[in-house]
Amino acid sequence: MNQMFFSEDVTRLLRDALREDIGTGDITTLSVIDSDRQGYGRYIAKEDGVLCGMDVVEAVFRMLDPSVVLTRHMEDGASFARGDVLAEVRGNAVSILSGERVGLNLLQHLSGVATRTREAVDTVAGTSAQIVDTRKTTPGMRVLEKYAVRVGGGSNHRFNLADGVLIKDNHIVAAGSITEAVRAAKRRAPHTLKVEVETETMEQVDEAIAAGADIIMLDNMDNETMRAAVERVAGRALTEASGNMGERDLRSVAETGVDLISIGALTHSVRALDISLKFVVE
Amino acid sequence: MNQMFFSEDVTRLLRDALREDIGTGDITTLSVIDSDRQGYGRYIAKEDGVLCGMDVVEAVFRMLDPSVVLTRHMEDGASFARGDVLAEVRGNAVSILSGERVGLNLLQHLSGVATRTREAVDTVAGTSAQIVDTRKTTPGMRVLEKYAVRVGGGSNHRFNLADGVLIKDNHIVAAGSITEAVRAAKRRAPHTLKVEVETETMEQVDEAIAAGADIIMLDNMDNETMRAAVERVAGRALTEASGNMGERDLRSVAETGVDLISIGALTHSVRALDISLKFVVE
Amino acid sequence: MNQMFFSEDVTRLLRDALREDIGTGDITTLSVIDSDRQGYGRYIAKEDGVLCGMDVVEAVFRMLDPSVVLTRHMEDGASFARGDVLAEVRGNAVSILSGERVGLNLLQHLSGVATRTREAVDTVAGTSAQIVDTRKTTPGMRVLEKYAVRVGGGSNHRFNLADGVLIKDNHIVAAGSITEAVRAAKRRAPHTLKVEVETETMEQVDEAIAAGADIIMLDNMDNETMRAAVERVAGRALTEASGNMGERDLRSVAETGVDLISIGALTHSVRALDISLKFVVE
Amino acid sequence: MNQMFFSEDVTRLLRDALREDIGTGDITTLSVIDSDRQGYGRYIAKEDGVLCGMDVVEAVFRMLDPSVVLTRHMEDGASFARGDVLAEVRGNAVSILSGERVGLNLLQHLSGVATRTREAVDTVAGTSAQIVDTRKTTPGMRVLEKYAVRVGGGSNHRFNLADGVLIKDNHIVAAGSITEAVRAAKRRAPHTLKVEVETETMEQVDEAIAAGADIIMLDNMDNETMRAAVERVAGRALTEASGNMGERDLRSVAETGVDLISIGALTHSVRALDISLKFVVE
Amino acid sequence: MNQMFFSEDVTRLLRDALREDIGTGDITTLSVIDSDRQGYGRYIAKEDGVLCGMDVVEAVFRMLDPSVVLTRHMEDGASFARGDVLAEVRGNAVSILSGERVGLNLLQHLSGVATRTREAVDTVAGTSAQIVDTRKTTPGMRVLEKYAVRVGGGSNHRFNLADGVLIKDNHIVAAGSITEAVRAAKRRAPHTLKVEVETETMEQVDEAIAAGADIIMLDNMDNETMRAAVERVAGRALTEASGNMGERDLRSVAETGVDLISIGALTHSVRALDISLKFVVE
Amino acid sequence: MNQMFFSEDVTRLLRDALREDIGTGDITTLSVIDSDRQGYGRYIAKEDGVLCGMDVVEAVFRMLDPSVVLTRHMEDGASFARGDVLAEVRGNAVSILSGERVGLNLLQHLSGVATRTREAVDTVAGTSAQIVDTRKTTPGMRVLEKYAVRVGGGSNHRFNLADGVLIKDNHIVAAGSITEAVRAAKRRAPHTLKVEVETETMEQVDEAIAAGADIIMLDNMDNETMRAAVERVAGRALTEASGNMGERDLRSVAETGVDLISIGALTHSVRALDISLKFVVE
Repeated sequence: MNQMFFSEDVTRLLRDALREDIGTGDITTLSVIDSDRQGYGRYIAKEDGVLCGMDVVEAVFRMLDPSVVLTRHMEDGASFARGDVLAEVRGNAVSILSGERVGLNLLQHLSGVATRTREAVDTVAGTSAQIVDTRKTTPGMRVLEKYAVRVGGGSNHRFNLADGVLIKDNHIVAAGSITEAVRAAKRRAPHTLKVEVETETMEQVDEAIAAGADIIMLDNMDNETMRAAVERVAGRALTEASGNMGERDLRSVAETGVDLISIGALTHSVRALDISLKFVVE
Repeated sequence: MNQMFFSEDVTRLLRDALREDIGTGDITTLSVIDSDRQGYGRYIAKEDGVLCGMDVVEAVFRMLDPSVVLTRHMEDGASFARGDVLAEVRGNAVSILSGERVGLNLLQHLSGVATRTREAVDTVAGTSAQIVDTRKTTPGMRVLEKYAVRVGGGSNHRFNLADGVLIKDNHIVAAGSITEAVRAAKRRAPHTLKVEVETETMEQVDEAIAAGADIIMLDNMDNETMRAAVERVAGRALTEASGNMGERDLRSVAETGVDLISIGALTHSVRALDISLKFVVE
Repeated sequence: MNQMFFSEDVTRLLRDALREDIGTGDITTLSVIDSDRQGYGRYIAKEDGVLCGMDVVEAVFRMLDPSVVLTRHMEDGASFARGDVLAEVRGNAVSILSGERVGLNLLQHLSGVATRTREAVDTVAGTSAQIVDTRKTTPGMRVLEKYAVRVGGGSNHRFNLADGVLIKDNHIVAAGSITEAVRAAKRRAPHTLKVEVETETMEQVDEAIAAGADIIMLDNMDNETMRAAVERVAGRALTEASGNMGERDLRSVAETGVDLISIGALTHSVRALDISLKFVVE
Repeated sequence: MNQMFFSEDVTRLLRDALREDIGTGDITTLSVIDSDRQGYGRYIAKEDGVLCGMDVVEAVFRMLDPSVVLTRHMEDGASFARGDVLAEVRGNAVSILSGERVGLNLLQHLSGVATRTREAVDTVAGTSAQIVDTRKTTPGMRVLEKYAVRVGGGSNHRFNLADGVLIKDNHIVAAGSITEAVRAAKRRAPHTLKVEVETETMEQVDEAIAAGADIIMLDNMDNETMRAAVERVAGRALTEASGNMGERDLRSVAETGVDLISIGALTHSVRALDISLKFVVE
Repeated sequence: MNQMFFSEDVTRLLRDALREDIGTGDITTLSVIDSDRQGYGRYIAKEDGVLCGMDVVEAVFRMLDPSVVLTRHMEDGASFARGDVLAEVRGNAVSILSGERVGLNLLQHLSGVATRTREAVDTVAGTSAQIVDTRKTTPGMRVLEKYAVRVGGGSNHRFNLADGVLIKDNHIVAAGSITEAVRAAKRRAPHTLKVEVETETMEQVDEAIAAGADIIMLDNMDNETMRAAVERVAGRALTEASGNMGERDLRSVAETGVDLISIGALTHSVRALDISLKFVVE
Repeated sequence: MNQMFFSEDVTRLLRDALREDIGTGDITTLSVIDSDRQGYGRYIAKEDGVLCGMDVVEAVFRMLDPSVVLTRHMEDGASFARGDVLAEVRGNAVSILSGERVGLNLLQHLSGVATRTREAVDTVAGTSAQIVDTRKTTPGMRVLEKYAVRVGGGSNHRFNLADGVLIKDNHIVAAGSITEAVRAAKRRAPHTLKVEVETETMEQVDEAIAAGADIIMLDNMDNETMRAAVERVAGRALTEASGNMGERDLRSVAETGVDLISIGALTHSVRALDISLKFVVE
């Protein structure tokens, strides 16, 4: 995962987060604890879940004080149970206390994403459907949240507006028809990108196939329509179920035969997983 | 609220969010829609809630294209019902489509925070308790999330580790006692900051009062203990209920007489409010 | 093209270029020319070419002094002849002289890219081949250089390593075979990206087709082999001619029937077009 | 050369270049090659030239992954022949493949500058003329390109508008005369900077000498006039030949006796030198 | 003090200072001294004072060249006499000469602040008064200057407008009265901040006490009035003497019984302490 | 002076200064003053001096709130007397109060520099000596402080290590002799820069002249030696008096006939001029 951390954007996010939380200094700790005190702590799960973000926690401490040592008991992607010790940390007490909250905020958030993704993936296990994310992410955290989706067993949809062509209703209206929109996209967008078309009716599905769409999004369709659409497509394009999937019965959606189910709630409505750091100054 | 927007940090967050979402350009829109097409859209609530983030949406469009015009139907803090039109937007279609998702992601997230805060505030209405936030915020978004808490009727706890003294168990252990920790904080921290002490037992409450604490946090106490503690403090310090308050019956907590109830879940477990932009290229 | 200019990266490039060239101030102009003198200038072509970069020149002046007015005689993409007046500029003399060189450096470079691209596009006119660029761009200028390629009539290959899958010899060796590499890519990369495979022999072409490659790069093949490869592919994938195409006879390459010809030299070996600013202080 | 690398501007250029090229990650390599695979590669010259940029290549890898080891076979400034191995690289395959292109783009570009400079320097060898660069550099790369000119044996003209006084025709017109312009510059510019005047006629040369110019630019003069001007100056100032020197017979220009020949084409029209990285995943 | 150096703001200040002073390179040193020469130097006090800034000097060298070694003879806060050797430095001569001036500028400035603070602290020794700083700091250097005040034995007032409530005359006028202003502040500002009120008369002191102010600033009062005010407050709030205290007889101010004396001149009118680096290239 | 404000560095300094002073918001003003209140203020001199920094004050308000209007009564460089109104400001009260301190801190500091420079310039009036600054400036503020020196009537020495060659004792030792050091500098530094040599004895002056130095620094010489040195140089180079000039009798130094007197104390030991903003909320 070192590739993720190269990312200037992640580095900057962590640096900004530390500055945001520490401001001009942890005045309580600096006032009360001698600067050379050492400390030891354990990250403990307060509920079951899927771990995501240990590299981030480590990077946060490395920024503050490279001499802090984090010893992991498990890696990102591992399932843990309430009460499990996830990692231990040892080092300068001031450094650890100053970075504790930023690390925890990220760990709890990302583990929340990974855990919810894993639930969705398990729900559709055995079908041909993949769980994918969307662009409905928390501003500034897309790289990390999409990483958490992969950690949870999901796949990533396009990262941003530049690395995927997705023709929506507005594009269709502006172009005049699905046919025209697909033609324009194929002519002007890089040839390395597939062309996806959002459809809401069977007529649109038919037109999208005829136009040569590579992926067909089935938006807000009921399961029956979706199943019919999948049959109509018949492998000529990938099919993607979309539209408030966070509230749908994923198993029944998956059983319509779609290739992909995209769920905005994986990242836009995250419940932080309850993980705590039990720390003692030594 | 212009003060908020001066904030370099908010400006940078929005700029980073746009770069994150747009990358090297909205390839679909640029390929399919002529660059001089105009468009018109309406922000529509898909569920009830409290509005927060319209200034942010406006700032996003202003960054992309100052000629886009946003007309608001209500201001931040207003309650709306499912189906309400919250605002209208008109201008260059490419600009609006390119900025749509970033604006919505922020609007839905912040309205989610404000809505949940409002619910908590309403729950404790009539008691003396104020609802306050914590440092358990989404990295990079603290200014905005704390703004959303205020919009929802809550108050802000300290912004970061530099603008409030909060003596926790670790500080107490390191200092030797609450008494020593408060003494050190009073001697070394700026005299403009109050000193808050986290307590878990009545003995600690007594010691904190004697040491001259300005605020006493009652951490993870049941309601009965909390009520006793409030009585013991008897106005000599502010009292703050804390510890998984997102899962507690807030009304009964408030009725113990505490001055403040701090709730991490207001910001660490946000459910995005369902708001959509209905947009047509003209 | 406003989308291009939103780009933080372009804004930053221009700002950095101005700082690089102006340093702590144009000491000659500030010493010799009164700060309120006005001036007038004309951009004149000293050789034939295709124009690219007028928006950039305008943005440079806007950064330095928004009151400078640039009046264009033609737009990006226009062909001009030696002696043509491309634009006029009027405003504060100090501002114009301070920004002159940065604007010209960009205008000459980008027009150089567009002109060479146009020559290549004209050479293959009437065939089915598109001229595309590569990642062999000048560090920091990729957005602008790829824009210049489009202005010259070419198309863009993937922008970076994240928005296209291109399996090269190393990937094949590491994966064990083309078949394995394509399988891994299809399983792990976002489903929105096509999979391209670099091939050097007919056997590899066969294996790539069988593995389901969306695009097949024909690398360093002579025209005859290339023609045979195109026939073998028979429309089941796009074909891309590659490998020192800047030195090849493009017409004969195009006549092999390939869909794409990628040319690194379009951007890695740019000859600045000779354009000058004739300026008088008034 | 560590001084060059201190430069925040170079560090930032490399970081921006990596972000530009890698985006959110090398999706092909990450999908196809295991993250712990090692690799080994050799930088091989495909044509003769002068090496420039090995420190840059090393810095690029160090940013991505400090464990990658680059072993040089020669240093910047060395001449190499087609087929020579310039350096070897060994380390994590994903890291090397991710940074390969940025390093090569810079190495080929800078070696192109150094090679062309060396050719010019060799051409004037034995005369008193020095080859110098101009401000016609690639935006963002001036530090590196001026370094490459030095590596090729040339000298640097002023770095930017702040560290040299160069009075051009516009300044003369605005000031009223060369005499007035030089007087103003000597009065207002820092006393540490020499004053250079651009001249096009013998009369201007005479006026510049009389005004006390430290350097006299002979702009667009034929060789005969230039020789006469050099004689007239008679060592009272440095003389600099200028004006499309990239297209002139440098030897005959140098033989006019000028002290300096400034050539914009050294940096504005760079042909990338053909250097490749032969890499194998081990 | 490692906490101080974590501070992104300090890191950026040092980086900006180096870029400001070095520009594109120390051209003299690079031209005259071989890049591998070593050197050795001693920091010598040219007058008596209090040391502050050795960590900063070390950080400056670390940025330029981590192999430079700084050996301290004393730590920040130590008193030194004219002629004392404060530290030694050894390493690459080019690196040390390039960073010398930035380090010295900071060391002399911060030692100037610490020395003046120490004088003030010594002057009021034995009284109950603490010496505190203000927001009248040098733009960009507040973290460092407030650190120097602490090093000199003083205490810090609020760091910025966000971490302290200070109601001044304008706020009082706007609110209608001290009473109203304090009420508004208590309702809207975070409960973790004390409320300070600026007063100029005994009536205002009375009103501030009644309103529940936590700190009362006694602005521009003569000593007699101040003593009366302190008596009136009688421990119900902290009292702070303010108003051109840099020109006042601090001892007599302290003897009025005030808790705090804030002195803008500690940081707004700094005399650099004379410290030099005696350096020899070896 | 718009050129100064273009400067990215000044813009960034002001932005950083505002962030440093405002933090997450002026909590007092936001709590107490309604966000739409207007205010009016006057900048009043509390002592005599030379004005410098009004453009900076205006830029600070423009960053915070472009609707604030600053009306100047005098321009930078004007002399004012105690009691003079320097400027008026009118606009949103919250904006003005939030930006007041940053603007004043800069105005007082820069006017302090300009005033002290003017005193020095007046002291040497009628002699041939120019007053110049040094690199002993406040980190981050060099552009502004050097501007203030010019405003006060002084001239600027080199801006940084890149735009002037100054051979000091260390360079001489390293090179072996003044002669060698000058030769190296002339060969390697850009030909646009003059070469200055620091001398302490008449022998060194002789050697510097013989070596062709353009400027000779007379370091820490008494007036008699200095006069002799000036006579020896006899116009063959500029002469610069240096070495604790802030403590010397400038008139007698100037009367030795030196061309330049450089004074570090102009910028390293600044006394803030007493200027206040009398402001009323309307």
